[in-house]
Amino acid sequence: MDAKAAPPSGLLSRKDSHLDLVLAGAGVVSARTGFDDIRFVHCALPEIALADIDLSTRWLGYDLSAPLMISSMTGGAVRAEQINHNLAVAAQALGIPFAVGSQRVALEGGSNSGLSQRLRDFLPSVPLLSNIGAAQLLGPQGFDQARRVVEAIGADALIVHLNPLQEALQPGGDTNWRGVLDSINRLSAGLQVPVVAKEVGAGLSPQVVRRLVEAGVQAVDVAGAGGTSWAAIEGHRGQTDRHRRVAQPFADWGIPTAEAVAQARAAAPHIFLIGSGGIRTGLDAAKAIRLGADLIGQAAYVLETALISPEAVIEAFEITVEQLRVACFCTGSQDLASLRRAPMQSTRGDLR
Amino acid sequence: MDAKAAPPSGLLSRKDSHLDLVLAGAGVVSARTGFDDIRFVHCALPEIALADIDLSTRWLGYDLSAPLMISSMTGGAVRAEQINHNLAVAAQALGIPFAVGSQRVALEGGSNSGLSQRLRDFLPSVPLLSNIGAAQLLGPQGFDQARRVVEAIGADALIVHLNPLQEALQPGGDTNWRGVLDSINRLSAGLQVPVVAKEVGAGLSPQVVRRLVEAGVQAVDVAGAGGTSWAAIEGHRGQTDRHRRVAQPFADWGIPTAEAVAQARAAAPHIFLIGSGGIRTGLDAAKAIRLGADLIGQAAYVLETALISPEAVIEAFEITVEQLRVACFCTGSQDLASLRRAPMQSTRGDLR
Amino acid sequence: MDAKAAPPSGLLSRKDSHLDLVLAGAGVVSARTGFDDIRFVHCALPEIALADIDLSTRWLGYDLSAPLMISSMTGGAVRAEQINHNLAVAAQALGIPFAVGSQRVALEGGSNSGLSQRLRDFLPSVPLLSNIGAAQLLGPQGFDQARRVVEAIGADALIVHLNPLQEALQPGGDTNWRGVLDSINRLSAGLQVPVVAKEVGAGLSPQVVRRLVEAGVQAVDVAGAGGTSWAAIEGHRGQTDRHRRVAQPFADWGIPTAEAVAQARAAAPHIFLIGSGGIRTGLDAAKAIRLGADLIGQAAYVLETALISPEAVIEAFEITVEQLRVACFCTGSQDLASLRRAPMQSTRGDLR
Amino acid sequence: MDAKAAPPSGLLSRKDSHLDLVLAGAGVVSARTGFDDIRFVHCALPEIALADIDLSTRWLGYDLSAPLMISSMTGGAVRAEQINHNLAVAAQALGIPFAVGSQRVALEGGSNSGLSQRLRDFLPSVPLLSNIGAAQLLGPQGFDQARRVVEAIGADALIVHLNPLQEALQPGGDTNWRGVLDSINRLSAGLQVPVVAKEVGAGLSPQVVRRLVEAGVQAVDVAGAGGTSWAAIEGHRGQTDRHRRVAQPFADWGIPTAEAVAQARAAAPHIFLIGSGGIRTGLDAAKAIRLGADLIGQAAYVLETALISPEAVIEAFEITVEQLRVACFCTGSQDLASLRRAPMQSTRGDLR
Ligand SMILES: Cc1cc2nc3c(=O)[nH]c(=O)nc-3n(C[C@H](O)[C@H](O)[C@H](O)COP(=O)(O)O)c2cc1C
Ligand SMILES: Cc1cc2nc3c(=O)[nH]c(=O)nc-3n(C[C@H](O)[C@H](O)[C@H](O)COP(=O)(O)O)c2cc1C
Ligand SMILES: Cc1cc2nc3c(=O)[nH]c(=O)nc-3n(C[C@H](O)[C@H](O)[C@H](O)COP(=O)(O)O)c2cc1C
Ligand SMILES: Cc1cc2nc3c(=O)[nH]c(=O)nc-3n(C[C@H](O)[C@H](O)[C@H](O)COP(=O)(O)O)c2cc1C
Repeated sequence: MDAKAAPPSGLLSRKDSHLDLVLAGAGVVSARTGFDDIRFVHCALPEIALADIDLSTRWLGYDLSAPLMISSMTGGAVRAEQINHNLAVAAQALGIPFAVGSQRVALEGGSNSGLSQRLRDFLPSVPLLSNIGAAQLLGPQGFDQARRVVEAIGADALIVHLNPLQEALQPGGDTNWRGVLDSINRLSAGLQVPVVAKEVGAGLSPQVVRRLVEAGVQAVDVAGAGGTSWAAIEGHRGQTDRHRRVAQPFADWGIPTAEAVAQARAAAPHIFLIGSGGIRTGLDAAKAIRLGADLIGQAAYVLETALISPEAVIEAFEITVEQLRVACFCTGSQDLASLRRAPMQSTRGDLR
Repeated sequence: MDAKAAPPSGLLSRKDSHLDLVLAGAGVVSARTGFDDIRFVHCALPEIALADIDLSTRWLGYDLSAPLMISSMTGGAVRAEQINHNLAVAAQALGIPFAVGSQRVALEGGSNSGLSQRLRDFLPSVPLLSNIGAAQLLGPQGFDQARRVVEAIGADALIVHLNPLQEALQPGGDTNWRGVLDSINRLSAGLQVPVVAKEVGAGLSPQVVRRLVEAGVQAVDVAGAGGTSWAAIEGHRGQTDRHRRVAQPFADWGIPTAEAVAQARAAAPHIFLIGSGGIRTGLDAAKAIRLGADLIGQAAYVLETALISPEAVIEAFEITVEQLRVACFCTGSQDLASLRRAPMQSTRGDLR
Repeated sequence: MDAKAAPPSGLLSRKDSHLDLVLAGAGVVSARTGFDDIRFVHCALPEIALADIDLSTRWLGYDLSAPLMISSMTGGAVRAEQINHNLAVAAQALGIPFAVGSQRVALEGGSNSGLSQRLRDFLPSVPLLSNIGAAQLLGPQGFDQARRVVEAIGADALIVHLNPLQEALQPGGDTNWRGVLDSINRLSAGLQVPVVAKEVGAGLSPQVVRRLVEAGVQAVDVAGAGGTSWAAIEGHRGQTDRHRRVAQPFADWGIPTAEAVAQARAAAPHIFLIGSGGIRTGLDAAKAIRLGADLIGQAAYVLETALISPEAVIEAFEITVEQLRVACFCTGSQDLASLRRAPMQSTRGDLR
Repeated sequence: MDAKAAPPSGLLSRKDSHLDLVLAGAGVVSARTGFDDIRFVHCALPEIALADIDLSTRWLGYDLSAPLMISSMTGGAVRAEQINHNLAVAAQALGIPFAVGSQRVALEGGSNSGLSQRLRDFLPSVPLLSNIGAAQLLGPQGFDQARRVVEAIGADALIVHLNPLQEALQPGGDTNWRGVLDSINRLSAGLQVPVVAKEVGAGLSPQVVRRLVEAGVQAVDVAGAGGTSWAAIEGHRGQTDRHRRVAQPFADWGIPTAEAVAQARAAAPHIFLIGSGGIRTGLDAAKAIRLGADLIGQAAYVLETALISPEAVIEAFEITVEQLRVACFCTGSQDLASLRRAPMQSTRGDLR
């Protein structure tokens, strides 16, 4: 998510402009998650009690209240600390995992953006996940840097983000990706905590998922297309007209989230699978779970609340949870395992 | 359709706001009945006389002039009595069944909304149907309450509505649905009149239809999606912003009526099948009959006329009947049995 | 196209309002001909000369310059004579057939609307076709009336229009269609000239085409949906609100012209097949011919020019002819037989 | 592209109005290239370096820096010389082929539009291609004229454009195409340089491609639909209303470029295949290459820059190159051969 060449100050200010563009909706493009093309079959006889529906799940040794997580977001220099605080307090209150944004700035000695051991204190009973870019794993220091970001915040796992499109489109991006898979392999084998691999909005293909599983990652997050488009954002913030024009046609590049989840599950039946990318409601979340996800991540959709207060974040997730429960109720699903078997159909097909 | 926890006064006022929202079009959503996706094949040589087309059918021991019925509507405290009067007079004049709305308010000792034995007097020669919510059948008093609502108005059958989505989205809704099927089973076995099961706008799936038939109901009404959306209405009247936001993504939840009718018929070839949910014209009605319905129900579409006079209701249904006759004529169908064999095709398919 | 019960004066004024509504575009609806869903495969190497393309065809013993005809239109009391004059002069100049509108008014002793033997004088070397409604063939006088309309103008053939939807929707329409097929049978056997059967904008289904062929008609004109919708027009001019509301859902009833032509050809490989209904350009005409039509009819599209002058009509048809020639040229088709084998594809299918 | 009958002056002024209409967007129509219907599968683990991606290719004995070319454009009397100069300088700087527009004006003794041996001087190390219309190859002088246009500019190959639709729609167009294939056959056998056949925006069908390959051409350029529509342009500039109306329905005639490329490749697995027609970005270019193209041509899209300066043209192509590289990077394609095997899918299909 960062440009190696950029000095820490440039890196920080870029992060701030990122944030403003996401908040202004610049990353919203015509690419679709695909969730609108599928529909649960309504069950008018649920034979369960809404109050008894069990959304609990386990991950990384923790009991989670619901199959949701706060996805990695960097917050820029000024606001990061406040954002991370609000998100952490909310995650703990909600009983769901919290993944911090890229720790590269901290690594390079810039602001730590609130990413210190203090953060961990807010999160005694939910997973905390570190974040580093794939390109930073390369080179002799790669493994060590990964270890350091995990230790810096006492994380339970390390997320490695794979963002080749973003790096290719942003000025000074890291675009030598030879050896990334090898680094992930070494990381999985040697790191003290599990490794999770994710995209940032263009999706993991089934081929990539298979390679990651073979490399030993503990979980994958498809982070598919249909939510925030980094190409669209680069298309807005490009420093030159030329940069902007190069980025434009890639605004709807990527694998739609619904498709990415379904194909990842088919490619890797046993991996811990996180579905994210444009998930707006608990109904989208229910569909992603139905298609094979174990956990659902949300980033851009909760960003606005993260600027306000922990309570605002909590309310946003509570609404998602409630929608997810209603989806379970109206499909007669007692728990997540049952939801995964609920009848579903494509809305594109013909009437029969 | 009602919240158990709500006091009668709240229940009544909610019913009134329901009505206003339906009349204001708040329940109209993007969900589609699916009728626009199918088309009758025009017959330019009908070889019948329009005047001789026979739309008569029988149900519950009555001869009906046309395969239409007035679907269950509660009318709120103030207007219910007038509405029920207008609808009853019209049903008798038209020779079609009249189903009253939920009798819960009356049961709980609130206004009887004109739902007394007097109503029956207006309806000497057409079926009158009682209405109760599935959740109210639960518990020791369930069977007895069902018996009482039937007796209160001297009904020919009892409609049990299955509305899990509505209950889940409305504040204080009945959301413990364990044992509902068992209650319907007992009701079918023990009640003095036949039992009909219906949804309220989200559709009965083929799986649910099969379970209902096994439970012994005499008829099912799919009440599918594409007409009034209760989620959209709750999305408007929710007392808190949070309620409204929870409801929103469910606005187009449900099985489109055309699909629900076709699948119900395939699942239960011999059940008496009522098609309803978004049926606006006699052409929609003809399509539903073609897909397998024995009778067509209309609620929201006639509500406006029900506030005016019996004559207004009669005219609305006469137009539907005339359209249904034209559809029969232009497919060369002498009667409903013939209409069920009329050639039909999907408008989504390719030209050949 | 007429109401038997109506007095000649009412009949005439209805015809005038018909005309105004068609000219005002009231008959244009969302129903589509289907021609936009198919596409010729461009041939960049035609190996022919545009000037040598041969569009000539034969029908009813005449050599025609192009596979086009002026379809039946009634012109109302005031304008009919002028319209028929302009169309006749143009048909002769163009070398294409001219079909007059319904001759019922003349039959019933009203204005002859220019439909006398004088008309024939303008048309020495092209076919002239009479027109009568199917319902008027019924009864003891039926055959005799048909004979009289043919003789009145010295026609080469008689068109019988089958318009059940129009009759069903118009006040006082003829809606007893028992025996129509029998009458056509007798007519084909006994009339001095060939019989042609056509719809008026809702299309002939393959089933109907087969029955007509068995009844001995010499040609059929599908007159499919996608052009003028009589239901839409009745929906505008209905004398009562009720009439208008009954007609509305039928505005897009009918078999799209492209589909009707293709299916008619498959059902009756040897019948003389006229394609009409919403044909606007020579490209539409080329597609209809490719799908199986022997001749193309145009009515509404040339109506406006018919009010002006023969020259205006001639120019409209010359443009159609030129477009038809360009379509032949760019598919490498030397003549109509070759055009019928030109590669074509659906634009709805997937890319491959 | 020219009218034989027109005097040189008319020919020149027509060329100028062509240019203005293209620049004003008059050729942009609803026809689509089809590239939006296909999508690369994103590869989040490219395992290559963006900087090492190899786009080089060879054609006509030259090494090209990228699989792109400047497609044939005539520039009208006044601006042609400047345009050709700008394009030539840019082609040389970019290391890609330059194809001049129709050399008919020069042949007929009008302005040479900068198409002299001087042009060749700007292009020492990239291919230069001559251009002549198919219809001009006919007749006894045909072969000789072809030889002369090649020699006039010292071209490396001769492009023969096949434009039957354009000729048919433009006043005085060449519309006798008998013998064109034979002439191409003779040309391929006898000309000192290779022959390339192309359309001008309506596409070469697989049937035509096969015939051209049999006739011995060295390369084909599909020049499909979705970019500039000459029918739309003739629909604007037609001298009479009648001309304009004849042209209108043909505005979206033609084989969409994506389809034309894929089908041409299937029909002729070994031909040197140029994909052009509406290619706007390097992402479109990547898709065309994936579908089978060896080289991509752009005309209208670079016209505006050609009026400005060589630098403007260079920048436009550099952006295309950069987008093409990003497409390679995000599909993990090291070079063009690898890009041709990149996973791709239709966006019209259903989710699975
Ligand atoms: C403001 C913002 C900053 C982000 N920063 C990071 C990051 O540093 N590391 C990372 O792995 N993903 C990052 N992402 C990507 C998200 O984690 C997520 O994968 C993507 O936005 C799709 O999910 P969404 O549609 O719910 O936002 C960021 C997203 C946003 C909106
Ligand atoms: C104002 C209103 C009140 C309703 N009340 C009831 C009710 O009390 N019981 C019931 O079974 N259905 C009730 N319904 C649902 C209807 O019976 C019907 O199933 C549904 O509205 C779909 O039909 P429609 O699209 O023709 O309205 C009500 C519908 C409306 C519009
Ligand atoms: C103003 C008008 C009057 C018509 N009158 C007749 C008629 O009298 N008899 C008949 O067979 N068809 C009649 N038609 C139908 C046409 O012959 C034709 O079948 C139909 O309009 C479809 O063709 P179009 O889309 O080219 O108009 C009439 C059509 C129009 C527009
Ligand atoms: C202004 C202009 C002039 C053209 N002149 C010629 C020409 O003289 N000869 C030719 O073969 N093609 C000519 N073309 C067609 C182009 O070479 C090309 O095949 C077509 O425009 C499709 O590509 P595009 O969408 O990139 O413009 C011309 C195109 C334009 C826009």
